[in-house]
Amino acid sequence: MSSGVAALGIADVGGLRAAGVACGIKASGAPDVALLVADAPVHAAGLFATNAFSAAPVRLSRAHLERTGGRVGAVVVNSGNANACTGERGEEDARLMASEAARLVGCDVAEVIVCSTGVIGQHLPRARVLEGIGRAHAGLARGRDASAAFAEAIRTTDAFVKEASAEVALPRGVVRVAGACKGAGMIEPNMATMLAFVATDLVVPSADLAALAKDAAARSFNALHVDSHASTNDTFLLLATGASGVGVGDAAEAAAAVVAVCRRLAWLIARDGEGATKVTTVRVSGAPDEVAARDVARRLVHSGLVRTALFGRDPNWGRFVSAAGNSPFVPPGSALTCAVQGVQVFARGEPTPFDREGLREAMGREDVKIEIDLAAGQASAEVLTSDLGYRYVEINAEYTT
Amino acid sequence: MSSGVAALGIADVGGLRAAGVACGIKASGAPDVALLVADAPVHAAGLFATNAFSAAPVRLSRAHLERTGGRVGAVVVNSGNANACTGERGEEDARLMASEAARLVGCDVAEVIVCSTGVIGQHLPRARVLEGIGRAHAGLARGRDASAAFAEAIRTTDAFVKEASAEVALPRGVVRVAGACKGAGMIEPNMATMLAFVATDLVVPSADLAALAKDAAARSFNALHVDSHASTNDTFLLLATGASGVGVGDAAEAAAAVVAVCRRLAWLIARDGEGATKVTTVRVSGAPDEVAARDVARRLVHSGLVRTALFGRDPNWGRFVSAAGNSPFVPPGSALTCAVQGVQVFARGEPTPFDREGLREAMGREDVKIEIDLAAGQASAEVLTSDLGYRYVEINAEYTT
Repeated sequence: MSSGVAALGIADVGGLRAAGVACGIKASGAPDVALLVADAPVHAAGLFATNAFSAAPVRLSRAHLERTGGRVGAVVVNSGNANACTGERGEEDARLMASEAARLVGCDVAEVIVCSTGVIGQHLPRARVLEGIGRAHAGLARGRDASAAFAEAIRTTDAFVKEASAEVALPRGVVRVAGACKGAGMIEPNMATMLAFVATDLVVPSADLAALAKDAAARSFNALHVDSHASTNDTFLLLATGASGVGVGDAAEAAAAVVAVCRRLAWLIARDGEGATKVTTVRVSGAPDEVAARDVARRLVHSGLVRTALFGRDPNWGRFVSAAGNSPFVPPGSALTCAVQGVQVFARGEPTPFDREGLREAMGREDVKIEIDLAAGQASAEVLTSDLGYRYVEINAEYTT
Repeated sequence: MSSGVAALGIADVGGLRAAGVACGIKASGAPDVALLVADAPVHAAGLFATNAFSAAPVRLSRAHLERTGGRVGAVVVNSGNANACTGERGEEDARLMASEAARLVGCDVAEVIVCSTGVIGQHLPRARVLEGIGRAHAGLARGRDASAAFAEAIRTTDAFVKEASAEVALPRGVVRVAGACKGAGMIEPNMATMLAFVATDLVVPSADLAALAKDAAARSFNALHVDSHASTNDTFLLLATGASGVGVGDAAEAAAAVVAVCRRLAWLIARDGEGATKVTTVRVSGAPDEVAARDVARRLVHSGLVRTALFGRDPNWGRFVSAAGNSPFVPPGSALTCAVQGVQVFARGEPTPFDREGLREAMGREDVKIEIDLAAGQASAEVLTSDLGYRYVEINAEYTT
């Protein structure tokens, strides 16, 4: 498996310090409080879960970002407990986490983003969390180790740490982008909490940053998700410290690096996928519009039969094609073609002969691609998914509430 | 596990004979051709898959029923091969199956219904199938054994034979309803081929029969499915031989018995569910309308996290509530309550304390009920689903194409 560790960590981005500690939320004693602090409040943009039962920290953080117009001084995260469906007490816990971080950091409370991930419906051990935030603050540092501690402390059922980074040399200077994320459950991506934190030292005005975050998410985290299917706690936060002095408008490569880091993080989530053995990209092209392309792709990645076939390296394209055929955007008599790992298996209503053993072997690779061409237009969409194996069941049936 | 065998078989319904034989489609040598023949053509109503890649036999059978206005002389079924995505050759195979049955039975070719189920995208071994139909015809019989042979020969990955029956004593005579079905894959019910054949000796006019089939399906097979998500081969056929001489209008019990038999068959499909250990009923009430109720129920049964929690007997209601929260019909601040096996676990935004060990034990029963009350209206809906365990992965990852 590819490593989830990147060359640069989030605290290698100029203007940021990070830390991660164990405060005892997790019975295992693993790290469960992470802190990211800006030397001075920085521009930020965030995308949040839209679930009716959005967690208290999600609602608080969204309100904070709105109030400050996109300015963040600190990000405090706990893992092991989602602080969702926890009523008034949960609201208060989230507010206390923010105010404790603000007090320690010396920023406005509205400049604090709070994220929680883990089990739903249980109250946080308040004293432990506050004590943990204090120790995390005392341990804040720049560089690789501090970044690793941060990335470690946001994990829940993740099998490995997930980081990504890019460094781009531009005429006006070197730009860094680095991030960390957590997330593993993928069968119903809406249910998986995904937290992603990406920072860059680019200079990006607030309004541009919001657009960049939206664009990057659409091409990464939201291609793992069906947008309307968010979990209670999903959060993607993009920070721009400006420490490089290079403007985002100075070169297209700068924004592209942000997108690339987000895409890599999304790939790592799919790769983890609670028992996943590979990452499958479903690409639907030749669609009348992007909505149609996405709907067809969604039919495949939501199918247990498709995802178990991927786990079993089974070129059972009948499952792929009939999943597509359930979309209202695929009419009877459709001339769609289907290819797996570049090998055409179905075209114009009939099977295409292919080397089954060869394709089975090709489906054992870490990256698998299913391509559906609807032959009905120019639009396309790509969605990432995990395969469905025994470990998924093990993790999710035996994961204690 | 409850037995899938019923007191009466389909060939215990007056006016019908049945048979099942092995013709060699299945490598295992298991029975794979089934035949049901009416002494004289009878009234029939059918519901079929709506997939863009509906199989050749589905398209042929739908056309036949339309042409005859709902009259059937014979039903010929093969298992082990879906004859879907098989192009012109597949169309011809389906037509040949119909004409061979018509020739043997002596009815019009349009009075033959053809059904296929199994692997998609492979051509039928034509000569074997035709020979098998001949032998099945030679072996046609009434009664229990012939019914069992029919029910056996329509199986694919089903772990057990699925039959249901009812006998109702009415003032004007005794009425029988009996049926058989096949279907096991449930994680994406749309992908699972379901074939269901239900016969009654009631006297039912064609138009009334279509309405009765639709009503019965809505309360049984379509509560396993999201309607727009049919497989390539789904077929539900309701036959009324009239042999009892009792009219469907003579007593409400008569139509109710048809619905009850369909509901029992649907329950058996959920119970099988490729590795299922129980049948879970998700009941959503207090909805503004039925569309909303169904959407919320669908969010739960489509969630791998919900279905693995059911397998693991885990009263992890956070998964249930947050799945519901993804529905656009559940607004932020919803006052929904959630109960599992009659035990309230969540209400008005907060967990309700409950005996976790007791509930875990109750979730080990063969029938599990999750109830969501949206507290936002009077409409309700019920959906059946299977839990997701290791066997599902085994069956579907290792089921050879």
